[in-house]
Amino acid sequence: MTVTLAHIQRAAERIKPYAHRTPVMTNESLNERVGARVYLKCENLQKVGAFKFRGACNAVYSLSDDEAKHGVCTHSSGNHAQALALAAKMRGIPAHIVMPNNAPQVKKDAVAGYGGRITFCEPTLEARENTLERIRLNTGANVVHPYNDERVIAGQGTASLELLADSPDLDAIIAPVGGGGLLSGTSIAAKGLKPGIRVLGAEPEMADDAQRSLKEGRIVPSVNPKTIADGLLTSLGSLTFPILQQNVEQIVAVSEQGIVDAMKFIWERAKIVIEPSSAVAVAVLWEKKIDLSGLKVGVILSGGNVDLGKLPWGGK
Amino acid sequence: MTVTLAHIQRAAERIKPYAHRTPVMTNESLNERVGARVYLKCENLQKVGAFKFRGACNAVYSLSDDEAKHGVCTHSSGNHAQALALAAKMRGIPAHIVMPNNAPQVKKDAVAGYGGRITFCEPTLEARENTLERIRLNTGANVVHPYNDERVIAGQGTASLELLADSPDLDAIIAPVGGGGLLSGTSIAAKGLKPGIRVLGAEPEMADDAQRSLKEGRIVPSVNPKTIADGLLTSLGSLTFPILQQNVEQIVAVSEQGIVDAMKFIWERAKIVIEPSSAVAVAVLWEKKIDLSGLKVGVILSGGNVDLGKLPWGGK
Repeated sequence: MTVTLAHIQRAAERIKPYAHRTPVMTNESLNERVGARVYLKCENLQKVGAFKFRGACNAVYSLSDDEAKHGVCTHSSGNHAQALALAAKMRGIPAHIVMPNNAPQVKKDAVAGYGGRITFCEPTLEARENTLERIRLNTGANVVHPYNDERVIAGQGTASLELLADSPDLDAIIAPVGGGGLLSGTSIAAKGLKPGIRVLGAEPEMADDAQRSLKEGRIVPSVNPKTIADGLLTSLGSLTFPILQQNVEQIVAVSEQGIVDAMKFIWERAKIVIEPSSAVAVAVLWEKKIDLSGLKVGVILSGGNVDLGKLPWGGK
Repeated sequence: MTVTLAHIQRAAERIKPYAHRTPVMTNESLNERVGARVYLKCENLQKVGAFKFRGACNAVYSLSDDEAKHGVCTHSSGNHAQALALAAKMRGIPAHIVMPNNAPQVKKDAVAGYGGRITFCEPTLEARENTLERIRLNTGANVVHPYNDERVIAGQGTASLELLADSPDLDAIIAPVGGGGLLSGTSIAAKGLKPGIRVLGAEPEMADDAQRSLKEGRIVPSVNPKTIADGLLTSLGSLTFPILQQNVEQIVAVSEQGIVDAMKFIWERAKIVIEPSSAVAVAVLWEKKIDLSGLKVGVILSGGNVDLGKLPWGGK
């Protein structure tokens, strides 16, 4: 199986009763500043504050009743963990979440708040994978990977189905890329509906493994990335890499300053709270690293989960 | 003339081509926290980031062409100044704005950015009124008071027309009160459409002049109020006071801590940027100073203009 437009359309039907159809916002100040007409798909207003709910919800509701009764499991300390916990809670099944024992308290609380059953482990990839495997064997829970999972990719693509239904004449669409689940789903939906549309990925210069992967024709791992965009630290997966190779025109890398400036501008002018990973996609326009002047450009604002006590601009 | 529902309905038609029809948002976490079903009317997403654009726009477009050619004028250093400047710019007429010479640079820049012609004066009420009167005599500009003006009151009421069109079965509606323009318009619209609806005002305990005015049956001036809600420092006006006496069930005063907590909760959970004055209305529910449990409550989020460098919670 490879993910197709039809999968994304079925995912959209499947998650419709549970996920928000998020609004598309426009902002004249932003348009003037970047010289394009920008359509912001507000996944920061999605359930759990991030697009991740779409993929997790599609995975949970794709299970047969027999499969579902054993629950789902994943390892994640981020938005995917919260998303999977909430989707499982909605279906009334357990969600087992493996988290590193050094995860911030606020993230532990969030997952627990959605009813996730947390198992802590040492903060290494090996420990996380071993712990997850043990839980899978003990419970029979279905593993839902944060991005390297076809059900998840199809779910993430539903944001662009909605965006293109609301704004059908977009010339280009930009999504941030970490593991590549969102950008994969975005590209399949967008190219499927509109073959001529330009699909661009956005990532921090400080975590430019996706850009290098596409250039080198192999998955270049992300090694110790240091960026404010903490949702984009992961490497591409075996499923997402070939999808991006096929569909994505270019991965554009943006500076840390560009991310912060774009984020602050959106807060100040559009009056919405976006997280740094969302701002990465806006920063492609902000820094004008690629010529999109005069075009209609969709931007997926991936989420709005930030620690208000640690903002990347001067405090009081 | 006194302002009626019909005036507000005409104002709505008049400003329709220029103002945003703002969304109404709901948030499950907020509902759970306050024990009511809350409908947030997002005037933070209005042009210039505040409901003030509605009143200013209605005033500007109420003028005949003959009147309009002399422009408009006001004294204000807040959202009304920006709103009037933008509305005048849209109509292609001058806006003369009197501002105290100690106004923050960011506010001067904002007014100038919308094309307002600024005249600075000493930061006293007498100097502001004298300067405004001189400008009026010299230019023939029409004075548009920030709240004690029937055109402005009618314009502000249009937010509630939209809110009740989108959510017709509200039991109550809460708006913040400073000079009383928003609450006056809100109350006339709401009571006009739905006589049984409860209309509540919200103000800071540290600036509770409206509450005291209604209790004492006379306009009690606001004297040196110290509150984070800097949009609510003014006293009621001769037009707004009797409207509130007639329509408003109660003015509820909230604590500074309640304002900050409600504001932070809305940013964190609803992912929208609201200013402290907006949070005052949310805080009525937050602090449960009045029993609204189980009811459907509309809340006018008055605006979203904040200095991101001076947030009222711990910095990084």
